Amino acid sequence: MTETGPQSMTADSRPTITVFERSPDGGKGLSRDMRVRWALEEVGRPCAVRPVSFAVMKEPAHRTLQPFGQIPTYEDGGLTLFETGAIVFHIADRHEGLLPRDANARARAINWMFAALSTIEPTIIDREVALYLERDENWFGQRLALVEARIRARLTDLSHRLGDADWLDGRFSAGDLMTADVLRRLGGSGLLEEFPNLAAFVARAEARPAFMRAFVAQRDFFKAAVEP
Amino acid sequence: MTETGPQSMTADSRPTITVFERSPDGGKGLSRDMRVRWALEEVGRPCAVRPVSFAVMKEPAHRTLQPFGQIPTYEDGGLTLFETGAIVFHIADRHEGLLPRDANARARAINWMFAALSTIEPTIIDREVALYLERDENWFGQRLALVEARIRARLTDLSHRLGDADWLDGRFSAGDLMTADVLRRLGGSGLLEEFPNLAAFVARAEARPAFMRAFVAQRDFFKAAVEP
Repeated sequence: MTETGPQSMTADSRPTITVFERSPDGGKGLSRDMRVRWALEEVGRPCAVRPVSFAVMKEPAHRTLQPFGQIPTYEDGGLTLFETGAIVFHIADRHEGLLPRDANARARAINWMFAALSTIEPTIIDREVALYLERDENWFGQRLALVEARIRARLTDLSHRLGDADWLDGRFSAGDLMTADVLRRLGGSGLLEEFPNLAAFVARAEARPAFMRAFVAQRDFFKAAVEP
Repeated sequence: MTETGPQSMTADSRPTITVFERSPDGGKGLSRDMRVRWALEEVGRPCAVRPVSFAVMKEPAHRTLQPFGQIPTYEDGGLTLFETGAIVFHIADRHEGLLPRDANARARAINWMFAALSTIEPTIIDREVALYLERDENWFGQRLALVEARIRARLTDLSHRLGDADWLDGRFSAGDLMTADVLRRLGGSGLLEEFPNLAAFVARAEARPAFMRAFVAQRDFFKAAVEP
Protein backbone atom coordinates (compact mmCIF):
# COMPACT_ATOMS: atom_id res chain seq x y z
CA MET A 1 0.00 0.00 0.00
CA THR A 2 1.50 3.32 -1.04
CA GLU A 3 -0.04 6.51 0.23
CA THR A 4 0.02 9.94 -1.32
CA GLY A 5 -1.05 13.27 0.11
CA PRO A 6 -0.63 14.86 3.53
CA GLN A 7 0.89 12.47 6.06
CA SER A 8 -1.28 13.78 8.85
CA MET A 9 -4.39 11.96 7.66
CA THR A 10 -5.09 8.39 8.59
CA ALA A 11 -5.26 5.76 5.87
CA ASP A 12 -8.88 5.03 6.82
CA SER A 13 -10.07 8.46 5.79
CA ARG A 14 -8.74 8.05 2.26
CA PRO A 15 -10.25 6.18 -0.62
CA THR A 16 -8.04 3.44 -2.06
CA ILE A 17 -7.59 3.04 -5.81
CA THR A 18 -5.94 0.17 -7.66
CA VAL A 19 -3.44 0.86 -10.43
CA PHE A 20 -1.17 -1.18 -12.69
CA GLU A 21 1.87 -2.54 -10.84
CA ARG A 22 4.05 -1.70 -13.86
CA SER A 23 3.09 1.14 -16.18
CA PRO A 24 2.24 -0.08 -19.70
CA ASP A 25 3.02 3.42 -21.04
CA GLY A 26 6.19 4.15 -19.07
CA GLY A 27 4.54 6.68 -16.77
CA LYS A 28 2.78 8.80 -19.43
CA GLY A 29 -0.41 8.67 -17.38
CA LEU A 30 -2.58 7.08 -20.08
CA SER A 31 -4.09 4.36 -17.86
CA ARG A 32 -7.56 4.97 -16.54
CA ASP A 33 -6.44 5.60 -12.96
CA MET A 34 -5.12 8.97 -14.18
CA ARG A 35 -8.61 10.48 -14.46
CA VAL A 36 -9.50 9.32 -10.96
CA ARG A 37 -6.25 10.66 -9.49
CA TRP A 38 -6.89 13.93 -11.33
CA ALA A 39 -10.47 14.27 -10.06
CA LEU A 40 -9.32 13.61 -6.50
CA GLU A 41 -6.64 16.29 -6.85
CA GLU A 42 -9.21 18.77 -8.21
CA VAL A 43 -11.29 18.38 -5.05
CA GLY A 44 -8.26 18.19 -2.74
CA ARG A 45 -8.80 14.63 -1.53
CA PRO A 46 -5.74 12.41 -1.05
CA CYS A 47 -5.95 8.71 -1.86
CA ALA A 48 -4.13 5.50 -1.10
CA VAL A 49 -2.81 3.54 -4.08
CA ARG A 50 -2.64 -0.25 -4.29
CA PRO A 51 -0.74 -1.75 -7.24
CA VAL A 52 -1.95 -4.97 -8.86
CA SER A 53 -0.12 -7.13 -11.37
CA PHE A 54 -1.71 -8.24 -14.66
CA ALA A 55 -2.03 -11.74 -13.21
CA VAL A 56 -3.65 -10.63 -9.96
CA MET A 57 -6.09 -8.44 -11.92
CA LYS A 58 -7.62 -11.55 -13.46
CA GLU A 59 -7.97 -13.47 -10.19
CA PRO A 60 -11.28 -13.93 -8.34
CA ALA A 61 -10.26 -11.66 -5.43
CA HIS A 62 -9.77 -8.67 -7.73
CA ARG A 63 -12.86 -9.58 -9.75
CA THR A 64 -15.02 -9.21 -6.66
CA LEU A 65 -14.02 -5.53 -6.87
CA GLN A 66 -13.85 -5.32 -10.69
CA PRO A 67 -15.87 -7.99 -12.52
CA PHE A 68 -14.10 -7.30 -15.83
CA GLY A 69 -10.60 -7.78 -14.38
CA GLN A 70 -9.35 -4.24 -14.96
CA ILE A 71 -8.05 -1.22 -13.04
CA PRO A 72 -8.80 1.16 -11.42
CA THR A 73 -11.14 0.26 -8.61
CA TYR A 74 -12.23 2.73 -5.96
CA GLU A 75 -12.88 1.76 -2.34
CA ASP A 76 -14.15 4.31 0.13
CA GLY A 77 -15.53 3.08 3.43
CA GLY A 78 -18.15 0.50 2.53
CA LEU A 79 -18.40 1.53 -1.11
CA THR A 80 -16.64 -0.12 -4.07
CA LEU A 81 -16.88 1.29 -7.60
CA PHE A 82 -15.07 0.11 -10.73
CA GLU A 83 -16.05 2.32 -13.67
CA THR A 84 -14.08 5.55 -14.03
CA GLY A 85 -17.21 7.42 -15.12
CA ALA A 86 -18.99 6.40 -11.94
CA ILE A 87 -15.93 7.04 -9.77
CA VAL A 88 -15.35 10.55 -11.12
CA PHE A 89 -19.09 11.26 -10.85
CA HIS A 90 -19.10 10.03 -7.26
CA ILE A 91 -16.16 12.28 -6.38
CA ALA A 92 -17.77 15.24 -8.18
CA ASP A 93 -21.14 14.57 -6.54
CA ARG A 94 -19.67 14.61 -3.03
CA HIS A 95 -17.27 17.52 -3.29
CA GLU A 96 -17.40 21.08 -4.57
CA GLY A 97 -15.72 22.11 -7.80
CA LEU A 98 -16.32 19.54 -10.53
CA LEU A 99 -20.06 19.97 -11.17
CA PRO A 100 -21.99 23.25 -11.41
CA ARG A 101 -24.58 23.97 -8.71
CA ASP A 102 -27.22 24.99 -11.25
CA ALA A 103 -29.32 21.88 -11.97
CA ASN A 104 -29.40 22.23 -15.76
CA ALA A 105 -25.71 23.07 -16.03
CA ARG A 106 -24.97 20.08 -13.80
CA ALA A 107 -26.99 17.76 -16.07
CA ARG A 108 -25.12 19.08 -19.11
CA ALA A 109 -21.73 18.50 -17.45
CA ILE A 110 -22.77 14.91 -16.72
CA ASN A 111 -23.89 14.67 -20.35
CA TRP A 112 -20.30 15.44 -21.44
CA MET A 113 -18.96 12.76 -19.09
CA PHE A 114 -21.15 10.19 -20.83
CA ALA A 115 -20.29 11.60 -24.28
CA ALA A 116 -16.58 11.26 -23.55
CA LEU A 117 -16.96 7.67 -22.38
CA SER A 118 -19.61 6.26 -24.72
CA THR A 119 -19.31 8.33 -27.90
CA ILE A 120 -15.65 9.38 -28.12
CA GLU A 121 -13.49 6.93 -26.14
CA PRO A 122 -14.74 3.71 -27.83
CA THR A 123 -13.49 4.90 -31.22
CA ILE A 124 -10.09 5.63 -29.67
CA ILE A 125 -9.94 2.27 -27.91
CA ASP A 126 -10.73 0.58 -31.23
CA ARG A 127 -7.49 1.99 -32.56
CA GLU A 128 -5.55 0.67 -29.55
CA VAL A 129 -7.17 -2.75 -29.94
CA ALA A 130 -6.38 -2.82 -33.67
CA LEU A 131 -2.73 -1.90 -32.98
CA TYR A 132 -2.56 -4.67 -30.40
CA LEU A 133 -4.50 -7.48 -32.11
CA GLU A 134 -4.32 -6.79 -35.84
CA ARG A 135 -0.94 -5.22 -36.44
CA ASP A 136 0.41 -8.35 -38.13
CA GLU A 137 -2.68 -9.07 -40.24
CA ASN A 138 -2.48 -8.29 -43.94
CA TRP A 139 -5.62 -6.17 -43.62
CA PHE A 140 -4.16 -3.93 -40.93
CA GLY A 141 -3.58 -0.88 -43.14
CA GLN A 142 -7.14 -0.88 -44.47
CA ARG A 143 -8.62 -1.46 -41.02
CA LEU A 144 -6.55 1.31 -39.44
CA ALA A 145 -7.84 3.72 -42.09
CA LEU A 146 -11.46 2.79 -41.22
CA VAL A 147 -10.81 3.13 -37.49
CA GLU A 148 -9.08 6.49 -37.86
CA ALA A 149 -11.89 7.77 -40.10
CA ARG A 150 -14.37 7.06 -37.28
CA ILE A 151 -12.13 8.87 -34.77
CA ARG A 152 -11.81 11.86 -37.12
CA ALA A 153 -15.59 12.02 -37.53
CA ARG A 154 -16.02 12.27 -33.76
CA LEU A 155 -13.20 14.80 -33.38
CA THR A 156 -14.63 16.93 -36.20
CA ASP A 157 -18.00 17.14 -34.44
CA LEU A 158 -16.41 17.78 -31.06
CA SER A 159 -14.14 20.45 -32.53
CA HIS A 160 -17.15 22.23 -34.07
CA ARG A 161 -19.00 22.16 -30.78
CA LEU A 162 -16.05 23.45 -28.75
CA GLY A 163 -15.29 26.25 -31.22
CA ASP A 164 -13.06 28.84 -29.59
CA ALA A 165 -14.36 28.25 -26.06
CA ASP A 166 -12.00 27.23 -23.27
CA TRP A 167 -14.27 24.42 -22.01
CA LEU A 168 -17.26 22.50 -23.37
CA ASP A 169 -20.00 24.25 -21.38
CA GLY A 170 -18.98 27.24 -19.32
CA ARG A 171 -16.58 26.65 -16.45
CA PHE A 172 -14.29 23.61 -16.19
CA SER A 173 -16.25 20.55 -15.04
CA ALA A 174 -16.00 16.79 -14.70
CA GLY A 175 -17.22 16.69 -18.33
CA ASP A 176 -14.11 18.54 -19.48
CA LEU A 177 -11.89 16.41 -17.23
CA MET A 178 -13.25 13.21 -18.75
CA THR A 179 -13.19 14.50 -22.33
CA ALA A 180 -9.62 15.77 -22.00
CA ASP A 181 -8.43 12.53 -20.43
CA VAL A 182 -10.06 10.50 -23.21
CA LEU A 183 -8.43 12.70 -25.88
CA ARG A 184 -5.04 12.30 -24.17
CA ARG A 185 -5.14 8.63 -25.25
CA LEU A 186 -4.57 9.85 -28.83
CA GLY A 187 -1.08 11.03 -27.84
CA GLY A 188 1.47 9.98 -30.45
CA SER A 189 -1.17 9.18 -33.10
CA GLY A 190 -1.01 12.64 -34.68
CA LEU A 191 -4.83 12.69 -34.83
CA LEU A 192 -5.38 15.25 -32.09
CA GLU A 193 -3.01 17.69 -33.78
CA GLU A 194 -5.33 17.77 -36.83
CA PHE A 195 -7.78 19.69 -34.61
CA PRO A 196 -5.88 22.66 -33.12
CA ASN A 197 -8.72 23.74 -30.81
CA LEU A 198 -8.95 20.22 -29.35
CA ALA A 199 -5.17 20.04 -28.92
CA ALA A 200 -5.33 23.41 -27.13
CA PHE A 201 -8.22 22.14 -24.98
CA VAL A 202 -6.12 19.17 -23.84
CA ALA A 203 -3.08 21.40 -23.24
CA ARG A 204 -5.27 23.73 -21.14
CA ALA A 205 -6.50 20.77 -19.10
CA GLU A 206 -2.98 19.40 -18.63
CA ALA A 207 -1.82 22.82 -17.39
CA ARG A 208 -4.20 22.68 -14.43
CA PRO A 209 -2.29 22.32 -11.15
CA ALA A 210 -4.49 19.36 -10.12
CA PHE A 211 -3.68 17.52 -13.36
CA MET A 212 0.01 18.17 -12.90
CA ARG A 213 0.00 16.92 -9.30
CA ALA A 214 -1.84 13.75 -10.36
CA PHE A 215 0.49 13.24 -13.31
CA VAL A 216 3.62 13.55 -11.15
CA ALA A 217 2.13 11.22 -8.52
CA GLN A 218 1.47 8.41 -11.02
CA ARG A 219 4.83 8.91 -12.75
CA ASP A 220 6.76 8.84 -9.49
CA PHE A 221 4.79 5.82 -8.36
CA PHE A 222 5.89 3.86 -11.43
CA LYS A 223 9.47 5.13 -11.17
CA ALA A 224 9.60 3.86 -7.60
CA ALA A 225 8.24 0.48 -8.78
CA VAL A 226 10.97 0.17 -11.44
CA GLU A 227 13.85 1.58 -9.35
CA PRO A 228 12.91 0.76 -5.75
CA MET B 1 -44.98 16.32 -33.32
CA THR B 2 -46.54 13.12 -32.06
CA GLU B 3 -47.53 12.89 -28.44
CA THR B 4 -47.94 9.83 -26.30
CA GLY B 5 -49.41 9.44 -22.84
CA PRO B 6 -52.46 10.94 -21.16
CA GLN B 7 -54.13 13.56 -23.37
CA SER B 8 -55.03 15.74 -20.41
CA MET B 9 -51.47 17.04 -20.00
CA THR B 10 -50.22 20.00 -21.96
CA ALA B 11 -47.35 19.48 -24.39
CA ASP B 12 -45.23 21.96 -22.44
CA SER B 13 -45.14 19.74 -19.37
CA ARG B 14 -43.62 16.87 -21.29
CA PRO B 15 -40.06 16.37 -22.35
CA THR B 16 -39.55 16.00 -26.11
CA ILE B 17 -37.32 13.29 -27.51
CA THR B 18 -36.13 12.88 -31.10
CA VAL B 19 -36.29 9.48 -32.81
CA PHE B 20 -35.58 8.05 -36.25
CA GLU B 21 -38.27 9.00 -38.80
CA ARG B 22 -38.09 5.48 -40.20
CA SER B 23 -37.09 2.55 -38.01
CA PRO B 24 -33.79 0.98 -39.14
CA ASP B 25 -34.81 -2.25 -37.35
CA GLY B 26 -38.47 -2.43 -38.40
CA GLY B 27 -39.81 -1.51 -34.96
CA LYS B 28 -37.75 -3.95 -32.88
CA GLY B 29 -36.89 -1.15 -30.49
CA LEU B 30 -33.13 -1.42 -30.88
CA SER B 31 -32.48 2.29 -31.43
CA ARG B 32 -31.24 4.29 -28.49
CA ASP B 33 -34.53 6.15 -27.94
CA MET B 34 -35.93 2.87 -26.57
CA ARG B 35 -34.00 3.15 -23.28
CA VAL B 36 -35.18 6.73 -22.81
CA ARG B 37 -38.81 5.82 -23.56
CA TRP B 38 -38.46 2.91 -21.14
CA ALA B 39 -37.01 5.03 -18.32
CA LEU B 40 -39.80 7.59 -18.76
CA GLU B 41 -42.39 4.80 -18.56
CA GLU B 42 -40.75 3.42 -15.40
CA VAL B 43 -41.24 6.77 -13.66
CA GLY B 44 -44.66 7.42 -15.23
CA ARG B 45 -43.70 10.46 -17.23
CA PRO B 46 -45.19 10.88 -20.73
CA CYS B 47 -43.12 12.40 -23.51
CA ALA B 48 -43.56 14.05 -26.87
CA VAL B 49 -41.78 12.42 -29.82
CA ARG B 50 -40.30 14.31 -32.76
CA PRO B 51 -39.11 12.21 -35.72
CA VAL B 52 -36.04 13.28 -37.69
CA SER B 53 -34.82 11.93 -41.02
CA PHE B 54 -31.24 10.73 -41.55
CA ALA B 55 -30.61 13.87 -43.63
CA VAL B 56 -32.02 16.27 -41.03
CA MET B 57 -30.01 14.55 -38.31
CA LYS B 58 -26.78 15.72 -39.94
CA GLU B 59 -27.90 19.33 -40.42
CA PRO B 60 -26.71 22.24 -38.24
CA ALA B 61 -30.12 22.73 -36.57
CA HIS B 62 -30.13 19.19 -35.19
CA ARG B 63 -26.43 19.39 -34.35
CA THR B 64 -27.10 22.30 -32.00
CA LEU B 65 -29.04 19.71 -29.97
CA GLN B 66 -26.81 16.72 -30.78
CA PRO B 67 -23.26 17.65 -31.86
CA PHE B 68 -22.59 14.14 -33.22
CA GLY B 69 -25.68 14.12 -35.49
CA GLN B 70 -27.50 11.24 -33.78
CA ILE B 71 -30.74 10.49 -31.96
CA PRO B 72 -32.20 10.64 -29.37
CA THR B 73 -32.10 14.11 -27.93
CA TYR B 74 -34.01 15.12 -24.81
CA GLU B 75 -35.51 18.57 -24.33
CA ASP B 76 -37.22 19.48 -21.07
CA GLY B 77 -37.92 23.13 -20.37
CA GLY B 78 -34.61 24.91 -20.80
CA LEU B 79 -32.52 21.75 -20.69
CA THR B 80 -31.17 19.81 -23.68
CA LEU B 81 -29.30 16.50 -23.28
CA PHE B 82 -28.06 14.14 -25.98
CA GLU B 83 -26.38 11.12 -24.38
CA THR B 84 -28.72 8.32 -23.34
CA GLY B 85 -26.66 7.68 -20.21
CA ALA B 86 -27.10 11.28 -19.12
CA ILE B 87 -30.78 11.35 -20.12
CA VAL B 88 -31.64 8.19 -18.20
CA PHE B 89 -29.59 9.41 -15.23
CA HIS B 90 -31.41 12.78 -15.33
CA ILE B 91 -34.80 11.03 -15.36
CA ALA B 92 -33.73 8.68 -12.55
CA ASP B 93 -32.25 11.56 -10.53
CA ARG B 94 -35.49 13.58 -10.65
CA HIS B 95 -38.07 10.82 -10.09
CA GLU B 96 -38.52 7.97 -7.66
CA GLY B 97 -37.96 4.39 -8.68
CA LEU B 98 -34.84 4.03 -10.81
CA LEU B 99 -32.11 4.75 -8.25
CA PRO B 100 -31.92 3.49 -4.66
CA ARG B 101 -32.18 6.09 -1.90
CA ASP B 102 -29.21 4.66 0.00
CA ALA B 103 -26.16 6.67 -1.10
CA ASN B 104 -23.81 3.71 -1.65
CA ALA B 105 -26.44 1.62 -3.45
CA ARG B 106 -27.20 4.64 -5.64
CA ALA B 107 -23.50 5.03 -6.55
CA ARG B 108 -23.33 1.33 -7.45
CA ALA B 109 -26.42 1.57 -9.67
CA ILE B 110 -24.80 4.50 -11.49
CA ASN B 111 -21.65 2.36 -11.76
CA TRP B 112 -23.65 -0.23 -13.72
CA MET B 113 -25.00 2.46 -16.03
CA PHE B 114 -21.43 3.45 -16.91
CA ALA B 115 -20.37 -0.20 -17.19
CA ALA B 116 -23.18 -0.90 -19.65
CA LEU B 117 -22.28 2.10 -21.80
CA SER B 118 -18.49 2.18 -21.65
CA THR B 119 -17.45 -1.43 -21.03
CA ILE B 120 -20.15 -3.58 -22.64
CA GLU B 121 -21.90 -1.61 -25.39
CA PRO B 122 -18.77 -0.56 -27.33
CA THR B 123 -17.89 -4.20 -28.01
CA ILE B 124 -21.44 -4.79 -29.29
CA ILE B 125 -21.36 -1.68 -31.48
CA ASP B 126 -18.06 -2.89 -32.95
CA ARG B 127 -19.93 -5.90 -34.28
CA GLU B 128 -22.63 -3.71 -35.83
CA VAL B 129 -19.99 -1.47 -37.40
CA ALA B 130 -18.11 -4.48 -38.78
CA LEU B 131 -21.32 -5.88 -40.28
CA TYR B 132 -22.02 -2.51 -41.85
CA LEU B 133 -18.56 -1.47 -43.07
CA GLU B 134 -16.57 -4.67 -43.51
CA ARG B 135 -19.03 -7.30 -44.65
CA ASP B 136 -17.64 -7.30 -48.21
CA GLU B 137 -13.98 -7.30 -47.21
CA ASN B 138 -12.07 -10.54 -47.58
CA TRP B 139 -10.96 -10.26 -43.96
CA PHE B 140 -14.53 -10.08 -42.63
CA GLY B 141 -14.69 -13.61 -41.23
CA GLN B 142 -11.46 -13.23 -39.27
CA ARG B 143 -12.45 -9.80 -38.00
CA LEU B 144 -15.90 -10.96 -36.91
CA ALA B 145 -14.29 -13.75 -34.90
CA LEU B 146 -12.07 -11.22 -33.08
CA VAL B 147 -15.00 -8.90 -32.42
CA GLU B 148 -17.22 -11.70 -31.12
CA ALA B 149 -14.42 -12.98 -28.89
CA ARG B 150 -14.29 -9.56 -27.22
CA ILE B 151 -18.06 -9.56 -26.74
CA ARG B 152 -17.94 -13.09 -25.26
CA ALA B 153 -15.22 -12.02 -22.82
CA ARG B 154 -17.44 -9.20 -21.52
CA LEU B 155 -20.51 -11.42 -21.37
CA THR B 156 -18.60 -14.12 -19.52
CA ASP B 157 -17.55 -11.64 -16.84
CA LEU B 158 -21.02 -10.12 -16.62
CA SER B 159 -22.61 -13.56 -16.41
CA HIS B 160 -20.30 -14.52 -13.53
CA ARG B 161 -21.14 -11.35 -11.66
CA LEU B 162 -24.90 -11.70 -12.13
CA GLY B 163 -24.92 -15.37 -11.11
CA ASP B 164 -28.45 -16.45 -10.26
CA ALA B 165 -29.60 -13.04 -9.06
CA ASP B 166 -32.54 -11.30 -10.71
CA TRP B 167 -30.77 -7.96 -11.07
CA LEU B 168 -27.17 -6.74 -10.87
CA ASP B 169 -27.27 -5.19 -7.40
CA GLY B 170 -30.42 -5.72 -5.37
CA ARG B 171 -33.62 -4.21 -6.71
CA PHE B 172 -34.16 -3.21 -10.36
CA SER B 173 -32.40 0.10 -11.11
CA ALA B 174 -31.34 2.34 -13.97
CA GLY B 175 -28.18 0.20 -14.06
CA ASP B 176 -30.23 -2.89 -14.94
CA LEU B 177 -32.31 -0.92 -17.44
CA MET B 178 -29.21 0.28 -19.26
CA THR B 179 -27.46 -3.10 -19.14
CA ALA B 180 -30.54 -4.94 -20.42
CA ASP B 181 -31.08 -2.46 -23.22
CA VAL B 182 -27.45 -2.74 -24.28
CA LEU B 183 -27.67 -6.56 -24.30
CA ARG B 184 -30.87 -6.38 -26.38
CA ARG B 185 -28.72 -5.10 -29.26
CA LEU B 186 -27.29 -8.64 -29.52
CA GLY B 187 -30.71 -9.91 -30.64
CA GLY B 188 -30.33 -12.23 -33.62
CA SER B 189 -26.58 -12.72 -33.11
CA GLY B 190 -26.99 -15.86 -31.02
CA LEU B 191 -24.38 -14.54 -28.59
CA LEU B 192 -26.74 -13.74 -25.74
CA GLU B 193 -28.19 -17.26 -25.81
CA GLU B 194 -24.73 -18.65 -24.97
CA PHE B 195 -25.25 -17.14 -21.49
CA PRO B 196 -28.59 -18.39 -20.16
CA ASN B 197 -28.60 -16.20 -17.05
CA LEU B 198 -28.02 -13.10 -19.18
CA ALA B 199 -30.74 -14.12 -21.62
CA ALA B 200 -33.08 -14.61 -18.63
CA PHE B 201 -32.03 -11.22 -17.26
CA VAL B 202 -33.01 -9.54 -20.53
CA ALA B 203 -36.29 -11.51 -20.70
CA ARG B 204 -37.06 -10.42 -17.11
CA ALA B 205 -36.41 -6.78 -18.06
CA GLU B 206 -38.53 -7.03 -21.21
CA ALA B 207 -41.41 -8.45 -19.15
CA ARG B 208 -41.64 -5.27 -17.08
CA PRO B 209 -44.87 -3.38 -17.84
CA ALA B 210 -42.93 -0.14 -18.38
CA PHE B 211 -40.70 -1.83 -20.96
CA MET B 212 -43.72 -3.26 -22.76
CA ARG B 213 -45.50 0.09 -22.88
CA ALA B 214 -42.39 1.76 -24.27
CA PHE B 215 -41.87 -1.03 -26.78
CA VAL B 216 -45.44 -0.80 -28.08
CA ALA B 217 -45.23 3.00 -28.27
CA GLN B 218 -42.11 2.96 -30.48
CA ARG B 219 -43.44 0.10 -32.62
CA ASP B 220 -46.77 1.82 -33.20
CA PHE B 221 -45.00 5.07 -33.91
CA PHE B 222 -43.04 3.46 -36.73
CA LYS B 223 -46.06 1.58 -38.04
CA ALA B 224 -47.94 4.87 -38.27
CA ALA B 225 -44.98 6.37 -40.14
CA VAL B 226 -44.96 3.54 -42.68
CA GLU B 227 -48.75 3.19 -43.03
CA PRO B 228 -50.09 6.64 -42.21
